[in-house]
Amino acid sequence: MNEYVQSKIRSIVDFPKKGIIFRDITTACKDAKALKEIVEYLTEQFKNKGIDYVAAVESRGFIFGSALACNMGAGLILIRKPGKLPAEVVSQEYQLEYGTDKIEMHKDAIEKGKKVLLIDDLLATGGTINAACKLVKKVGGIPVACAFVIELEDLKGREKIDSDVEVVSMLKY
Amino acid sequence: MNEYVQSKIRSIVDFPKKGIIFRDITTACKDAKALKEIVEYLTEQFKNKGIDYVAAVESRGFIFGSALACNMGAGLILIRKPGKLPAEVVSQEYQLEYGTDKIEMHKDAIEKGKKVLLIDDLLATGGTINAACKLVKKVGGIPVACAFVIELEDLKGREKIDSDVEVVSMLKY
Repeated sequence: MNEYVQSKIRSIVDFPKKGIIFRDITTACKDAKALKEIVEYLTEQFKNKGIDYVAAVESRGFIFGSALACNMGAGLILIRKPGKLPAEVVSQEYQLEYGTDKIEMHKDAIEKGKKVLLIDDLLATGGTINAACKLVKKVGGIPVACAFVIELEDLKGREKIDSDVEVVSMLKY
Repeated sequence: MNEYVQSKIRSIVDFPKKGIIFRDITTACKDAKALKEIVEYLTEQFKNKGIDYVAAVESRGFIFGSALACNMGAGLILIRKPGKLPAEVVSQEYQLEYGTDKIEMHKDAIEKGKKVLLIDDLLATGGTINAACKLVKKVGGIPVACAFVIELEDLKGREKIDSDVEVVSMLKY
């Protein structure tokens, strides 16, 4: 655990709804040193693994995507909410606590067989990242790893990710 | 103009609605070389200007924010759509073609007097970036520059930005 970065994460009680402690990364992002340490830590984990693309999940995943992709000499792919991507897409639904949600990726985003690192800020129940991995596979890519700044261990999101995909989180709660 | 990067921008006719040619940056982002050139170009413009914070506008501004902030040793601030930021916010409304929209920033995002570079992917009519500059000022920051990957010159968005704020766009259409 990186204590400096963790000291910069703000915990907000009852957001977005009662009973949830929201781990606010904006206070870490605005701290130049903490931002740098997050990006360097995640880069370090994957830099020699032949990653072709970093796939960032809207919208807090976008925050870290470009820095990681640039550091690793990879391309950056956007996984977005429905209706945001302008060209032909593939979609993937996933379960929420109540109801379902959907994410999309451009059909031509990834060449077949390329290695993809998925990035999001937070691993909670794992629904979103699991759907994101399915999208990568649908377009022919290989999800080799998922990276998160924060993992909420009690929610066991890690178990939803395929066992052949490496999972790295920087901070655990 | 960077011809390599421009060759990677995809133009999509009639998105998001009829009569609009959408300049799709996802095809540039997924190209590792183009992504790197965008980030290096924008870094180069601002790296010796004492930027304290990069403020990224949701959500395509987020894409470039972290790489720029890390390269310049700056912190990263998020300017978001309403209801997304967990702590106390300041808001700014702005005019759309029909109706209004609103963006928000954490009230404690920036220390007073700090220099801020605002980043978004696209400068169109300038409504969003003008509102974003107002937000930065509301919390005590100084907007010193605005950076865009693409500028749609015919829409004259540049004229909406205060004259003491530097405006840089990499590609012009």
